[in-house]
Amino acid sequence: MTTTENPLVLAVDQDRIAADLDHLASLTEPGPGVSRLAFTELERQAHEYFAATLRPLGYRVWTDTVGNTIAELEGTDPGAPAIGTGSHLDSVPSGGRFDGIVGVAAGMEVARALADSGVRPRHRLRVVAFAAEEGARFGQACTGSRVVAGLTDAADLDRLRDAAGTSMAEAMRSVGLAPERASEARWAAEEWAAFIELHIEQGKVLESLDLPIGVVDVISGSTRLEFTVTGLASHTGGTPMHLRADALAAAAELVLLAEEIATDSRHHGTRLTVGRLDVSPNSLTTIPGAVVFGLDVRDVDSARQRETAAEFTARAHAVAARRGVGLRDRLLADTSPVVLPSWIQDEITRAARDCGSAYRVMPSGASHDSQMLTRVVPVGMVFVPSRDGLSHTPAEWTSVPEIAEGTRVLAATLLRLDAAASTGEERAR
Amino acid sequence: MTTTENPLVLAVDQDRIAADLDHLASLTEPGPGVSRLAFTELERQAHEYFAATLRPLGYRVWTDTVGNTIAELEGTDPGAPAIGTGSHLDSVPSGGRFDGIVGVAAGMEVARALADSGVRPRHRLRVVAFAAEEGARFGQACTGSRVVAGLTDAADLDRLRDAAGTSMAEAMRSVGLAPERASEARWAAEEWAAFIELHIEQGKVLESLDLPIGVVDVISGSTRLEFTVTGLASHTGGTPMHLRADALAAAAELVLLAEEIATDSRHHGTRLTVGRLDVSPNSLTTIPGAVVFGLDVRDVDSARQRETAAEFTARAHAVAARRGVGLRDRLLADTSPVVLPSWIQDEITRAARDCGSAYRVMPSGASHDSQMLTRVVPVGMVFVPSRDGLSHTPAEWTSVPEIAEGTRVLAATLLRLDAAASTGEERAR
Repeated sequence: MTTTENPLVLAVDQDRIAADLDHLASLTEPGPGVSRLAFTELERQAHEYFAATLRPLGYRVWTDTVGNTIAELEGTDPGAPAIGTGSHLDSVPSGGRFDGIVGVAAGMEVARALADSGVRPRHRLRVVAFAAEEGARFGQACTGSRVVAGLTDAADLDRLRDAAGTSMAEAMRSVGLAPERASEARWAAEEWAAFIELHIEQGKVLESLDLPIGVVDVISGSTRLEFTVTGLASHTGGTPMHLRADALAAAAELVLLAEEIATDSRHHGTRLTVGRLDVSPNSLTTIPGAVVFGLDVRDVDSARQRETAAEFTARAHAVAARRGVGLRDRLLADTSPVVLPSWIQDEITRAARDCGSAYRVMPSGASHDSQMLTRVVPVGMVFVPSRDGLSHTPAEWTSVPEIAEGTRVLAATLLRLDAAASTGEERAR
Repeated sequence: MTTTENPLVLAVDQDRIAADLDHLASLTEPGPGVSRLAFTELERQAHEYFAATLRPLGYRVWTDTVGNTIAELEGTDPGAPAIGTGSHLDSVPSGGRFDGIVGVAAGMEVARALADSGVRPRHRLRVVAFAAEEGARFGQACTGSRVVAGLTDAADLDRLRDAAGTSMAEAMRSVGLAPERASEARWAAEEWAAFIELHIEQGKVLESLDLPIGVVDVISGSTRLEFTVTGLASHTGGTPMHLRADALAAAAELVLLAEEIATDSRHHGTRLTVGRLDVSPNSLTTIPGAVVFGLDVRDVDSARQRETAAEFTARAHAVAARRGVGLRDRLLADTSPVVLPSWIQDEITRAARDCGSAYRVMPSGASHDSQMLTRVVPVGMVFVPSRDGLSHTPAEWTSVPEIAEGTRVLAATLLRLDAAASTGEERAR
């Protein structure tokens, strides 16, 4: 592969990207797809692979107190702030091999392509693998990036627990991290010039328009609630229908209520999902005595997101009262939608044109580490297509050529930012 | 406590019954209530306690190839067939300390009360602790009694599996049983004169009428089905509502369909319950890709039971087709309702009058080992009250005085049967 005429467009190597993806996909629990949950040995092994790839390229690599791994290449101007890229290496249970991972793999390939090209940026370049982006285990998403942005502190890490009752702090300590020193991982805004995350779309827009590149303008917010329905466990044979307080029948009505609210035309674009639901005692011959389920409400409109969550909660309590079951609700996490700065969107669109890649400006339905980072650094996001729009499933798929094209655009964006950003107070934010 | 004037009414000792119940309740997995599942070491320990109680009273005790434990007292007429009593010692997960157990405890107390009284029955008396009555683990209820009645064979034991994929035969072997020799456990009809099971009602009829004794005339049948709903797992943020195939939303509609059919006035008395439901991958941020749930259909009317199960299945497939999800159904178990012989009901009602206990003739909503035994021996059932009608929950409760009153009626019934039944072809069945 040869470099192109434009000095901003680096030659990327598809075989190296494919090898990284294959190796990272091998770090998984048994079972379908990739299961590499937050704060497990497997996640740490993926971070070690990342570190071992970048150290030989002259990057200084460190893991902060909460598990984010940062690889830094010194810039030609030691006083210039950092330009960064990266994503996360953890997965949901039985997830895919691309979500988050392609953003880190693209960062590794940018580092290698830069080394191949001999180009040395003026700004320090930081490639970051964030810890614990998925909220699957502890209910809170983007933990690593929330900590660096000052949105989550040591007390939160003690409070959040997984289904087995393990606190996030305990899980972190079990893999050698120091959650009580979370504050040391915070980023200082003055150290950063910009951050670009490449990610799979996790939707069908790019595929349906046959476009290789998405430039994100706004990231959806997510309100996550846990509901506990309390009925009366009893024998399925001995208990007539009219004497029952069936927690699962009540929960079923609430699952359908979530669907009904989301498909109501007043809520255009709002997505409500019950993804997790646990029945107790979960026995064929016992009327369910309790059900715990999680609701995820997503929207690009902040007010509509919170109003929808409140509407669901109010109507759920009315259903519970009518059915004579108990209902408790608990907020697990709440993240606002974020509008990304237009000057960074502009740099990405110019970089796409440099690379000859067609693109579209579009919102992100999913949450991302970038959403948290906007608190401390101007952020942009590049999307690559997801086959059939699928994500969080073993069927998740993006081809290596598609990832390579995204990586070229990412590298060109980083070089454009390196050339454009001035030192010191880089730009009015 | 002294014996009464009537030689058929034995003095029973409440303290001995309470001690048996306390000890048996201690044989449980950690957690709420009693969890002593079929074919576990805990179930075997309960059977050993039963054996150790009856051996010193002169009973010959053996455990058959499938785990039923039988204690036999030789009768004064060695040629006379057996009169039996008993129930089961396993429980559902997080169940109560009375279901099944009181029938075995009553049998143990009858044996001790007989020994105290010096009365020696003409017929051999058999007290039986059946194995694996609860269908919670393997989907099939009454396995021990099904085998003795010739309704389940070695091939069935190989086929039935628990949620972890362990076959019933493997579980049996792991606790020292011999499922491949299940046929050796079958009972010969000519060996038996009658069998009486005492059980908690698991409903509210006796409590609401303030009656201590129920005489069962008919036992509900149960059709148990497993349904697998297959949707498309995908990211909760990236996937718009109209592109979803949410397996849990479809399953929720089916849970409510079961409730709707059961409360339809055309199905008066039919009970439909979804007691078990498992979501996959069960992650807060993934649209559920698959749901497996179990449906239990109960009725005292055989045709209505099967027609209701068929109606649910047909309508469930229509729901799945409309929602664009896959649906597979599988029959787990199917047991017909059983009408118990009236001459045995008559002996129980006479025994209740002997004891001065008020009673009512009533159906059983739950399945029982007795239902299987009707294939090989004339059966009767005695109910004692359940507080609030609750069963299959830690809140299950029947007081020791209530159990003692049932035990007196049980003993009087067994002595009446011993006096009434003639040798040889005891009675036209």
